[in-house]
Amino acid sequence: MADLINLTRGNPDPAAFPIQALVRCSEENLKRDGKVVLQYGHAPGYAPLREWFARQYAVKPANIFMGNSSLEILNFLTQIELKPGTRAFVESPSYDRANTLLRRSGAEVVGIPMEADGMNLAIFEKELQKGPPALAYVVADFQNPMGTTTSEAKRKQVAAWAQQYGFWIAEDAPYRQLRYHGQAVPTIMSFAPDRVLHMSSLSKVLAPGVRMGYVVAPEAVVEKLVRYALDTYIGPVLTAQGMVYEYLCTGALEPNIEKLKKLYGPRLDGALASLDKYLPGTIIARPEGGYFVSITLPQGNSMDKLLARAEGVGLKLSDGRGFYLTPADGDRFLRIPFCQIAPDEMEEAIRRLAGILD
Amino acid sequence: MADLINLTRGNPDPAAFPIQALVRCSEENLKRDGKVVLQYGHAPGYAPLREWFARQYAVKPANIFMGNSSLEILNFLTQIELKPGTRAFVESPSYDRANTLLRRSGAEVVGIPMEADGMNLAIFEKELQKGPPALAYVVADFQNPMGTTTSEAKRKQVAAWAQQYGFWIAEDAPYRQLRYHGQAVPTIMSFAPDRVLHMSSLSKVLAPGVRMGYVVAPEAVVEKLVRYALDTYIGPVLTAQGMVYEYLCTGALEPNIEKLKKLYGPRLDGALASLDKYLPGTIIARPEGGYFVSITLPQGNSMDKLLARAEGVGLKLSDGRGFYLTPADGDRFLRIPFCQIAPDEMEEAIRRLAGILD
Repeated sequence: MADLINLTRGNPDPAAFPIQALVRCSEENLKRDGKVVLQYGHAPGYAPLREWFARQYAVKPANIFMGNSSLEILNFLTQIELKPGTRAFVESPSYDRANTLLRRSGAEVVGIPMEADGMNLAIFEKELQKGPPALAYVVADFQNPMGTTTSEAKRKQVAAWAQQYGFWIAEDAPYRQLRYHGQAVPTIMSFAPDRVLHMSSLSKVLAPGVRMGYVVAPEAVVEKLVRYALDTYIGPVLTAQGMVYEYLCTGALEPNIEKLKKLYGPRLDGALASLDKYLPGTIIARPEGGYFVSITLPQGNSMDKLLARAEGVGLKLSDGRGFYLTPADGDRFLRIPFCQIAPDEMEEAIRRLAGILD
Repeated sequence: MADLINLTRGNPDPAAFPIQALVRCSEENLKRDGKVVLQYGHAPGYAPLREWFARQYAVKPANIFMGNSSLEILNFLTQIELKPGTRAFVESPSYDRANTLLRRSGAEVVGIPMEADGMNLAIFEKELQKGPPALAYVVADFQNPMGTTTSEAKRKQVAAWAQQYGFWIAEDAPYRQLRYHGQAVPTIMSFAPDRVLHMSSLSKVLAPGVRMGYVVAPEAVVEKLVRYALDTYIGPVLTAQGMVYEYLCTGALEPNIEKLKKLYGPRLDGALASLDKYLPGTIIARPEGGYFVSITLPQGNSMDKLLARAEGVGLKLSDGRGFYLTPADGDRFLRIPFCQIAPDEMEEAIRRLAGILD
């Protein structure tokens, strides 16, 4: 059998981790502030880092909360804002782990079908009228799993509804800084800062292992998060946040993002070219950034058939049904992460994929 | 006003953090295994560290789960094992944050009154007959907040009941290795390994800022924890666990614990001597280790009066009511953490305390 090609999780390429720089940053921070980062404290996250992000987003430190991954921050938000009897809206398909957390809260989770430019707003509005959600989870930039970017018009409309109906938008934006083509679209937060909890992390632009997630949010929400964090783990892992702080202070993040764009941009282009060549017409929307491109398998195919055959040709694929609240909706949906796969390997993967489709 | 003396949280003395050693360990781990610890993965905790703890406790790696603090592991356990309609038993008084987490689960939380050698077992048994708990939370060694050690006989009895009635004992043992006097008592786990979730951390014996908590538990429980962790944060903060792993591999932990015993033991002795001198007869049980000694205020005193007066003499105290499910039960209970306070400062603190009591 051919060497296995793994097209499952959205991992960064580990060859791009700035290991030497992080060694120096860890040393620098422990030596200067070891008695702080090795002690208890800083429930909202390492204070100097909190101030750094506040400057970055032009908000107050009281608007920043940092935790051990943005996923866990979403968990806190769902535990605080949702409960049985409330509703949560989510894009359909959406990030599988987000679906799990929303459901864990006991809320009724409603999927709003995705289109190439974001959610179908007619359906969103119909669901609003049935009963507004307490929270809507949206990945507006280079969506996981579809790769789509929500249009400015749709962002404005959802922001306006959040204000009108009084619900929170959890705008998860970990891929936002990785735009390889085209122009940035304003964040949903920019249209309704009083109603948007803008989440991001350093997992896609630096390294996931530091688990540095953060949210920019109204003070009242941050206060609830701090209380919840204190009760859950006292404070986040400060040694990791201290190391990250030094790294950001050196000004190395922007050049690192440029380096990643030069690495991942051609991988996206290569993946799209291979799909055009071997599976023309299957791409749902041509992504302009991020980690994922997604396709609809031609009629006559199904996940069960695909996954059974993939093993035989050395392909490991994500079950597309996992991204949908109603699994059957994803029976012909395939997410293809491209950042960790070299272009020639990706062409080989798509060739194998085409060979096992009906 | 005199310099403030803070007798609230149980923090280690930051002067004892082995900062230089941790700088080297962080460098060593990032250089050798950076592509792993900076990537996603290892939901049960950094694999080599998991193996290290497995050897330490003579169990399989599948019996070890490590997270970003033992408190958060307790949170996971309560979320997995408790729900409205179940019961949880807890020592009364107990660790305030544990009480909060147990209650967050929605379970009925029942406090079992503490005595100088552990819980009152007559009351434990009566509550068992009313309805066994799903989980009992116990700090058997140098209890937080009392400083007491549960006797071997009581450990055996509680372990036997856990097997008979089929409930989990969460045995939280972060202070266990810090014994300054007397002989170690066998863990509750040693009497019922199939029913005990033995939790500990490196917060008291190395540094809290790395948030390295772990639990030794039956495989089926570890599997549930891994699933829950994966869904909550994907994996713990691996850079911190990598640094800790290198530290443990150097064999430095045992000497560090010996160093801490030499530092903290005399502080315990000094605190006891000062209490004997200024507040004779108030110590509830003379601790043989750990971080805390506790006293019962003489009759006629109350928390409201005490806390109002403490400020005026430069004392910051923990409200004793916070350790009880029924706050009024702690109206004359005072926890005194001694590890972060130099002996002469502690004598001054106790002198001030005696001066404001009725």
